[in-house]
Amino acid sequence: MINLKDDERLDYLLAENLRIIQSPSVFAFSLDAVLLARFVYVPIQKGNLIDLCSGNGVIPLFLSARTKGKITGVEIQERLYDMAVRSIEYNGLENRLEMILGDIRDMPKKLGYGKFDVVTCNPPYFTTPSKGEINPNEHLAIARHEILCTLEDAIKASSELVRQGGKVAFVHRPGRLLDIVTFMRQYRLEPKRIQFVYPKMGKEANTILVEAIKDGSPDLKILPPLIVYQDNDEYTPEIREILYGEK
Amino acid sequence: MINLKDDERLDYLLAENLRIIQSPSVFAFSLDAVLLARFVYVPIQKGNLIDLCSGNGVIPLFLSARTKGKITGVEIQERLYDMAVRSIEYNGLENRLEMILGDIRDMPKKLGYGKFDVVTCNPPYFTTPSKGEINPNEHLAIARHEILCTLEDAIKASSELVRQGGKVAFVHRPGRLLDIVTFMRQYRLEPKRIQFVYPKMGKEANTILVEAIKDGSPDLKILPPLIVYQDNDEYTPEIREILYGEK
Repeated sequence: MINLKDDERLDYLLAENLRIIQSPSVFAFSLDAVLLARFVYVPIQKGNLIDLCSGNGVIPLFLSARTKGKITGVEIQERLYDMAVRSIEYNGLENRLEMILGDIRDMPKKLGYGKFDVVTCNPPYFTTPSKGEINPNEHLAIARHEILCTLEDAIKASSELVRQGGKVAFVHRPGRLLDIVTFMRQYRLEPKRIQFVYPKMGKEANTILVEAIKDGSPDLKILPPLIVYQDNDEYTPEIREILYGEK
Repeated sequence: MINLKDDERLDYLLAENLRIIQSPSVFAFSLDAVLLARFVYVPIQKGNLIDLCSGNGVIPLFLSARTKGKITGVEIQERLYDMAVRSIEYNGLENRLEMILGDIRDMPKKLGYGKFDVVTCNPPYFTTPSKGEINPNEHLAIARHEILCTLEDAIKASSELVRQGGKVAFVHRPGRLLDIVTFMRQYRLEPKRIQFVYPKMGKEANTILVEAIKDGSPDLKILPPLIVYQDNDEYTPEIREILYGEK
């Protein structure tokens, strides 16, 4: 049995045989989170992974299908934290997935410096707007705007949490690419792999995936382009495989 | 009549009805130069453009088909400078294309600070290797390695030559992307448009095109992916159009 609250629903993470609690008025995961969970390097047999700004836990849940390691998710909104905890329990993953309710900036002190092999983060995308422009729905506003967590906060915390040689992966919008790589280098994270996601052939990229190595040597690779939709507006085979496990 | 020396040959710049002197042992232009000449913003009716590290003048020649403005090319190797001058004469473009034999670092003092609307540069790609690894052919070594011109030299000179609000465009390898954007920001050039060139779908990018604006505001766009070859190893229609003017 599962306890669904208000307008929550239980959705499939289709490619992974997992279920996740979503709510349109509070938080529903995006394709970006799925792409990040599939893009990042993960140790297969064991390891210590952490996901910052975890929302309803979509990235830890996806990652659990790629690694047998331990995965920690950090979320500052109690309502989303609670959804993530219930999804983890529903999938029977409590033995290696743990959610922490708190501020990512406090995590290095709380969890230890350099204790993680992998850090992932799908941070709020938008810089804090003026009061009038902000989403009146507080849950969505905090998830989408840099109200409680700036990009620099997230990169700094990631760098402090990851071990030397460990990986840090972010997903964001192309407009922030230069800020991401600049902040990463400032906090000893050397970008090594970048992938651009284009909504369609012939269109500008609308999403970027960046993976850095703590204290890595400079040697950047630009991965093959990822195209989301075909000309007929259906998902490309590559995206269908990521989302639904179809070949 | 044209005076061809040694192993020089007169090649077509196919899409542009132009001819260019090439020499396999001295310098032959690459697809990268063609892509840069087509990528960069150019004023159509008039303007003052300059191309640094010009080689045999391929970029000024290509640009002459896109703008009625004045184009200056700067090349440090006399042998290449001489090829460029003869190509310009052969095409009857002496009235608005001029080659300068010299060091790009001296150009701001010689030509004036902030006098250009557009600066292009296809710089040497490789950092200076140890003596043993360097190309024994001096012409090719200077054109390919940062012997007489480092990436920072080229970006600094570009920034000094371009006017406020003017454009600076570089082509390079993905491994130097972070250095390029870091140096650009250091010299008040804000990257605004980046395009990644992938040899084939499913392959990593092997070329990057970056355009910045002097004292521009941060707002980066990642242009649609440019794919060079189809799966059957023929050029894609987009590249055929760029190279041969075919639709």
